[in-house]
Amino acid sequence: MDLFAENVLDHGFVRLVDFMGGDLAVVQAARVSVGKDITTPDRDRKLVHFLLENRHETPFEHSLFKFHIKCPIFVARQWFRHRISSYNEISGRYTEMKEEFYLPQTLRAQKNKNYVYTALEEKMNEELLRQVENSYQQAFQLYQTLLQQGVAKEHARIVLPLALYTEFYWSVNARSLMNFLMLRSDPHAQWEIQQYAQSLERVFAAQMPWTHEIFCKMKTKV
Amino acid sequence: MDLFAENVLDHGFVRLVDFMGGDLAVVQAARVSVGKDITTPDRDRKLVHFLLENRHETPFEHSLFKFHIKCPIFVARQWFRHRISSYNEISGRYTEMKEEFYLPQTLRAQKNKNYVYTALEEKMNEELLRQVENSYQQAFQLYQTLLQQGVAKEHARIVLPLALYTEFYWSVNARSLMNFLMLRSDPHAQWEIQQYAQSLERVFAAQMPWTHEIFCKMKTKV
Amino acid sequence: MDLFAENVLDHGFVRLVDFMGGDLAVVQAARVSVGKDITTPDRDRKLVHFLLENRHETPFEHSLFKFHIKCPIFVARQWFRHRISSYNEISGRYTEMKEEFYLPQTLRAQKNKNYVYTALEEKMNEELLRQVENSYQQAFQLYQTLLQQGVAKEHARIVLPLALYTEFYWSVNARSLMNFLMLRSDPHAQWEIQQYAQSLERVFAAQMPWTHEIFCKMKTKV
Amino acid sequence: MDLFAENVLDHGFVRLVDFMGGDLAVVQAARVSVGKDITTPDRDRKLVHFLLENRHETPFEHSLFKFHIKCPIFVARQWFRHRISSYNEISGRYTEMKEEFYLPQTLRAQKNKNYVYTALEEKMNEELLRQVENSYQQAFQLYQTLLQQGVAKEHARIVLPLALYTEFYWSVNARSLMNFLMLRSDPHAQWEIQQYAQSLERVFAAQMPWTHEIFCKMKTKV
Repeated sequence: MDLFAENVLDHGFVRLVDFMGGDLAVVQAARVSVGKDITTPDRDRKLVHFLLENRHETPFEHSLFKFHIKCPIFVARQWFRHRISSYNEISGRYTEMKEEFYLPQTLRAQKNKNYVYTALEEKMNEELLRQVENSYQQAFQLYQTLLQQGVAKEHARIVLPLALYTEFYWSVNARSLMNFLMLRSDPHAQWEIQQYAQSLERVFAAQMPWTHEIFCKMKTKV
Repeated sequence: MDLFAENVLDHGFVRLVDFMGGDLAVVQAARVSVGKDITTPDRDRKLVHFLLENRHETPFEHSLFKFHIKCPIFVARQWFRHRISSYNEISGRYTEMKEEFYLPQTLRAQKNKNYVYTALEEKMNEELLRQVENSYQQAFQLYQTLLQQGVAKEHARIVLPLALYTEFYWSVNARSLMNFLMLRSDPHAQWEIQQYAQSLERVFAAQMPWTHEIFCKMKTKV
Repeated sequence: MDLFAENVLDHGFVRLVDFMGGDLAVVQAARVSVGKDITTPDRDRKLVHFLLENRHETPFEHSLFKFHIKCPIFVARQWFRHRISSYNEISGRYTEMKEEFYLPQTLRAQKNKNYVYTALEEKMNEELLRQVENSYQQAFQLYQTLLQQGVAKEHARIVLPLALYTEFYWSVNARSLMNFLMLRSDPHAQWEIQQYAQSLERVFAAQMPWTHEIFCKMKTKV
Repeated sequence: MDLFAENVLDHGFVRLVDFMGGDLAVVQAARVSVGKDITTPDRDRKLVHFLLENRHETPFEHSLFKFHIKCPIFVARQWFRHRISSYNEISGRYTEMKEEFYLPQTLRAQKNKNYVYTALEEKMNEELLRQVENSYQQAFQLYQTLLQQGVAKEHARIVLPLALYTEFYWSVNARSLMNFLMLRSDPHAQWEIQQYAQSLERVFAAQMPWTHEIFCKMKTKV
């Protein structure tokens, strides 16, 4: 039923639930400025390129992607900083959360004040991941104890870690999506949100191939 | 090809070019907060009503209307004050404008400092409308003279009156559309934009009947 | 140095760092529509009331509050849903988080599917709060272990609970602030964010007394 | 009383009515992400440069400019396309418009389909400007006739040309202002709005010199 669905990280996903518009919708919106409409594929594709290269970005706002996303809360917190889009998220006040936490395969090591990351030494990695997993379990056990004792869901959930998975619907137009991709598929973004950005970009490339083509060129320039 | 098309005023129109979402998309987005989805028509319809009555307005943002509008510039100026939506308009810098001006059927009379309007006396109305029409013709003739003498379109058009028709694509989500309708179908809005709002509301009622139903109740309350 | 500062919850605060505008700025912006300016306090105050009662809300956008906020992450997550405002937050990727977690004084009990809350029985409350506090300590200890072993801050922090305190600057205009207060000081909002909303409302009342006066009347009507 | 005031075109102006923030407010908002504050001028200035060069644009949103603008309607129509800012404009529905129209000193000539402009030959320019001025006078005379016969202001004004001056208050944060300047001081923008953009940029340079410094470098790169 989905237009696209892909697993991301250990329990997350990106699903494209609905879509409106596309490359030709960009052309149509842009050509109204000269009182014209869609012409030939060759000229239309060139127009899409011209628009993005010259920062005429409003014609890209008429295409809308509606996604269903599942990601850890620490990723969602970065995501929700993008304000020109629409969100509806599962609520920990009204819903009992499931025991789903993000467990990295490899913990990243970081040299002081240096944002170049390397993998942790293997033994240490295993040992620490076991402690992390253990910590998740204890937190979730306390969460359940609190609920069983009648504590409100909205209070109980505050003991759960930022690695907890959440879900939301996200509607975003192509212009705002490109801004998201530019910032979140960048190597400076946290690796986990990069994985989501790459998945979103595959959707974008499939639905708006001409726009994606020129978007890729723009990315390398910045 | 259009999902909806209707003439408005003497040369204008409202066309629904594309649409995504609907009442069930509202339900879907809202139910994610409790980890659920669409259920039965009866319960879903009640949920839509509950949401709007209790100002949970974000689920309405996932439905998008893409309109093609033609209206006089003085109407467009009121329209473009609505910022949470997307516009692409015909450009008088790049396109030669057509001789299309809004001519009211009846000029409204207004008693001083009183915003109750009445129709002008018939004879006077006829006489003044003739002068208005004449004024449009002269302005357009000057516009053409300027163009013929090589004046740039962007300069020539500044002599044209605010009654000139313009065209634009307008993409707006259901939440922002409801805000537009609330303000612009109100009797305090200028009569001309009310005509457009009524046309837009017919589109809205057809595409999202449950939402429109409760929207109507809300309107009478305010 | 602050224009206002108040502690909220066990480790949080609301600070007003800067402010521009006020009731007279509302009047000034509104009167431009009739080509006039500020007049007498009595007439100006009436105008402010008229504007809000009749949903002329744009004149309230020219007043800006810049706050410095410290609150638990689960509160910040509700806060950041408000998109028409500006945020800069402390980053767990770049900064080592402090051991500051929100510990409720009394855990709220909730009867099933009923959003009326009561206080938990006292003995049980004490016992459970001790477990919660203990859980915070263990999570923070693991966080420090991870950092000591060279794990990147952005990875280590994902074990920390949603009760962790965060800080951010928040600039918001008076119109958007009123929308925040309407939703977040409502009894249906979570008690913790209500405390912040009440503090923000005290700032609002002090800086824009005429606007606050009519805002209070509007609140009771909805 | 104004922080800045400058005449633009034949009857227009740019006035800075109020301002909040500045370069140090950028620094303050940015440093919260690392849990720090303002340091030394040299390091702070470098930070401002780093932020803009690396597209960390949110710290610039906490500075707000409140302008009072007077410009021709065809310029205002380009201006109001910028949605991330606040507007209150004089209303032709409620206020009798003054006889103030923009008359270019030199009409621009444009070769067909070529957006390179040259000045019109002098004699022709004089002759055509006389006709333009005449056209303005006739339109305004009709406007007054309509009003005298009791026609509502909102109807009478539709005969007035796009060269008519309008006034508005405009509050815009530094990030959105930079976007405006980037697009509207560009040589591809219409010459008239470029004049306003240059005036706004002088305000910007005076209030936020460090930000303006790096903004200028960015402009030349695009």
